[in-house]
Amino acid sequence: MPGARTSAHPIFTVQPREPLDERRVEHLSALAAEVRRLNEATVHTALPEEELTELTAQVRALTDRLDAARRAFPPVSGDGYTTPGEGMLQQIASPVTGELNPIAPPCRIEFLEDGSVRTEFTLNFLYEGPPGLAHGGVSAMVLDQLLGLAANNNGTPGLTASLELRYRRPTPLGQRLTAEARIDRIEGRKAYAVGRILNAEGKVTIEATAMFVMPMLG
Amino acid sequence: MPGARTSAHPIFTVQPREPLDERRVEHLSALAAEVRRLNEATVHTALPEEELTELTAQVRALTDRLDAARRAFPPVSGDGYTTPGEGMLQQIASPVTGELNPIAPPCRIEFLEDGSVRTEFTLNFLYEGPPGLAHGGVSAMVLDQLLGLAANNNGTPGLTASLELRYRRPTPLGQRLTAEARIDRIEGRKAYAVGRILNAEGKVTIEATAMFVMPMLG
Repeated sequence: MPGARTSAHPIFTVQPREPLDERRVEHLSALAAEVRRLNEATVHTALPEEELTELTAQVRALTDRLDAARRAFPPVSGDGYTTPGEGMLQQIASPVTGELNPIAPPCRIEFLEDGSVRTEFTLNFLYEGPPGLAHGGVSAMVLDQLLGLAANNNGTPGLTASLELRYRRPTPLGQRLTAEARIDRIEGRKAYAVGRILNAEGKVTIEATAMFVMPMLG
Repeated sequence: MPGARTSAHPIFTVQPREPLDERRVEHLSALAAEVRRLNEATVHTALPEEELTELTAQVRALTDRLDAARRAFPPVSGDGYTTPGEGMLQQIASPVTGELNPIAPPCRIEFLEDGSVRTEFTLNFLYEGPPGLAHGGVSAMVLDQLLGLAANNNGTPGLTASLELRYRRPTPLGQRLTAEARIDRIEGRKAYAVGRILNAEGKVTIEATAMFVMPMLG
């Protein structure tokens, strides 16, 4: 298949994905943004049961229409997967950063000149753990992605081999959070990254370290 | 407010939540199940742009109808929050286990007699990290929840203080996964839990340890 590359390492068999042009990405992003709002409305609604039944049927009908033309894999931006490093940046349907993925907050990433990465984001009640607070696992998910992107931005992309999180104070919902990550050191095929989440007052809520192993491409 | 309890520890201020009866939970679960399918259809659709624009407007209209009667916080089952331990089990809108939360897989938990907890679940492309594989952060989220439930099931519920993950082999999408967790030991107010995810062949893909600190309730 043209453009498809496979590697000796079975986990990095690169599947061909349909790359989208900008216009199509915009349309799908607009749809995903509305579905994201629908997700939130679903956990907050207090509508009477008769109306819920009616709306449930309407959602089903919408899904059936979208599925009438269905691709096997989520699309990517750019040229499709070529290398794992480029692939990560092209994942417009990522559960953390993907504008096209309705379950992503989504976290928009800034790639800084010093090689570090940064994102500002807000979590709503879809991401709740303890009452009024972010789910510890949701924060872990954001940090895993961000530390992975730091490794990527450093030119040393890899798969997560270990991830360690220290929860210092609660991470609130509904307020602007900042997450940042950078590469600490490289040892052979291992990239060590560090990162953290800060609350709106700039206080650290969670610290993270991760080790990524760079794949050997065939 | 009747049933509301607050604690000296500000993070465990227990917010009053509206408890739902079983019938209402069923209706909201049915809605969430359809919205979950819509999320998946959104990342897979190959519909032409004109249709996407039309469907986007329809999703917006549905959201506006659901939001016409909106509660400030997601609902819970049972009697509403009384203790953190009970509260965790009543979180029917949890991002991991919540039937009412469209972004949750959702993982249905079994509480075993030996005190351990277990779930069988499948992740679709909404949860993709590397091509064809589960996002490492999504797996971390599932494990954080499961280890927390093990602490809860042990009668020692708490907030995540640390979480460590070792990724042993890839965690595939689209196949039945099993996750299990149990309490390893208790030291004062600290509960140490261990857990793992297994692939369909029963091989460990990720190992996790976590420490939970039990709150002091006022």
